[in-house]
Amino acid sequence: MIHLSLIGIGTGNPDHLTRAAIRAMNAADLILLPHKGEAKSDLLDLRRAICAEVLTRPVRIAEFDMPSREEQGMYVDVVMEWHDAIAAIWMEQIARNLPDGGTVALLVWGDPSLYDSSLRIAERLGPSVEISVVPGITSIQALTAAHGICLNRLAGPVLITTGRQLRDHGWPNGVRDIVVMLDGHCAFQTLEPEHLMIWWGAYLGMEHQALAKGPLALAGPKIIERRAALRQKHGWIMDVFLLRQDA
Amino acid sequence: MIHLSLIGIGTGNPDHLTRAAIRAMNAADLILLPHKGEAKSDLLDLRRAICAEVLTRPVRIAEFDMPSREEQGMYVDVVMEWHDAIAAIWMEQIARNLPDGGTVALLVWGDPSLYDSSLRIAERLGPSVEISVVPGITSIQALTAAHGICLNRLAGPVLITTGRQLRDHGWPNGVRDIVVMLDGHCAFQTLEPEHLMIWWGAYLGMEHQALAKGPLALAGPKIIERRAALRQKHGWIMDVFLLRQDA
Repeated sequence: MIHLSLIGIGTGNPDHLTRAAIRAMNAADLILLPHKGEAKSDLLDLRRAICAEVLTRPVRIAEFDMPSREEQGMYVDVVMEWHDAIAAIWMEQIARNLPDGGTVALLVWGDPSLYDSSLRIAERLGPSVEISVVPGITSIQALTAAHGICLNRLAGPVLITTGRQLRDHGWPNGVRDIVVMLDGHCAFQTLEPEHLMIWWGAYLGMEHQALAKGPLALAGPKIIERRAALRQKHGWIMDVFLLRQDA
Repeated sequence: MIHLSLIGIGTGNPDHLTRAAIRAMNAADLILLPHKGEAKSDLLDLRRAICAEVLTRPVRIAEFDMPSREEQGMYVDVVMEWHDAIAAIWMEQIARNLPDGGTVALLVWGDPSLYDSSLRIAERLGPSVEISVVPGITSIQALTAAHGICLNRLAGPVLITTGRQLRDHGWPNGVRDIVVMLDGHCAFQTLEPEHLMIWWGAYLGMEHQALAKGPLALAGPKIIERRAALRQKHGWIMDVFLLRQDA
């Protein structure tokens, strides 16, 4: 019997870990850590550092290379194939490292429920694998905490969306507050900036944390420039932003 | 100088606390715990239990009675007056217990950024009070973790909204996935249930945790009945649900 524990670890700061996450890591027989290529080796190092800091018993750690994603093809098809490939690697690692069964843990950036593929990949493992989820702090919460702001207005709704959605469909109907994730291309620049305020953050909770805010017309171009410089400096960047209409 | 630390504590399970939250609690000179009346005394007991469990040094704890909210009047006006009254009580407690300044902590259910008034109340304290925020696990994350589901579809948007919004405005435009919070009246019953699935949870992460899911037409009436029974049994209830169109 295999038990798979998907553990949200927050956004790279070991202090984001919950007591439940630390307990689940220590309860595992195996922790799988993905290699995502040179540019993102900081992230692997961070996961290693988190293990070193919170494990209080010897837990086996296995590192594996993430398969690369096809560049060509329909987005959904490409993602499906990629998830199949990752599931196959997980199973191979589990078979090799836990031949008699046990508990395998994966450390998931942010929270396993939000723009993360681990649950979708885990579904491919079949009914013999029992899955549990430990929630973690998302980059949205790290963003609002760092800026000291509320996500919603008084009893108002908030849309969580992606850079792609914003680029393809423009400002969504019926909401005045949106959080944009998974955005590699500063999708805010496709919007009419009038009446919009932005709160932006990158490397949230980490040593290099960068924050910016202001009217989008003023802050937007500065964020684009700063983001490019930071990305070049560190080799990778993860960021998130909140946009508020008529704030 | 007063430093105010708003600490997200998750949804009532001490294991939801992050390392940062535990550190911030122990760094405080004073922790303020609100009394919210007899029916919600469980929640005060939980906060007391959390303090007892994670404090490793003697931190002064002061309990205070929350002012009651006016029943009559415009929603926004009533809330504004209520926030003014709470801010005055905080200041009185701080002046009494920390006459020479220091760090006061408030333990916030869930995360201080999401449908919580603490930041709005804290703004009333003026510029001499420095504010910091420690993010916490929200009931949304506790819901998705308990059900083992993703919040969003593959790269899709999600709306976070309230029971009142859903009742007053119906299903929101342009989204197929919504999370409903602050809902005392099962607002899902105002919707046409066809094509809708619900994932519901109450007392998430706590001893009495209750979960239900299914097509809204079938699960909805059962949830209404169960919620009423649980509320009567425990004297209070906090719940949240995810609705998915054409899941």
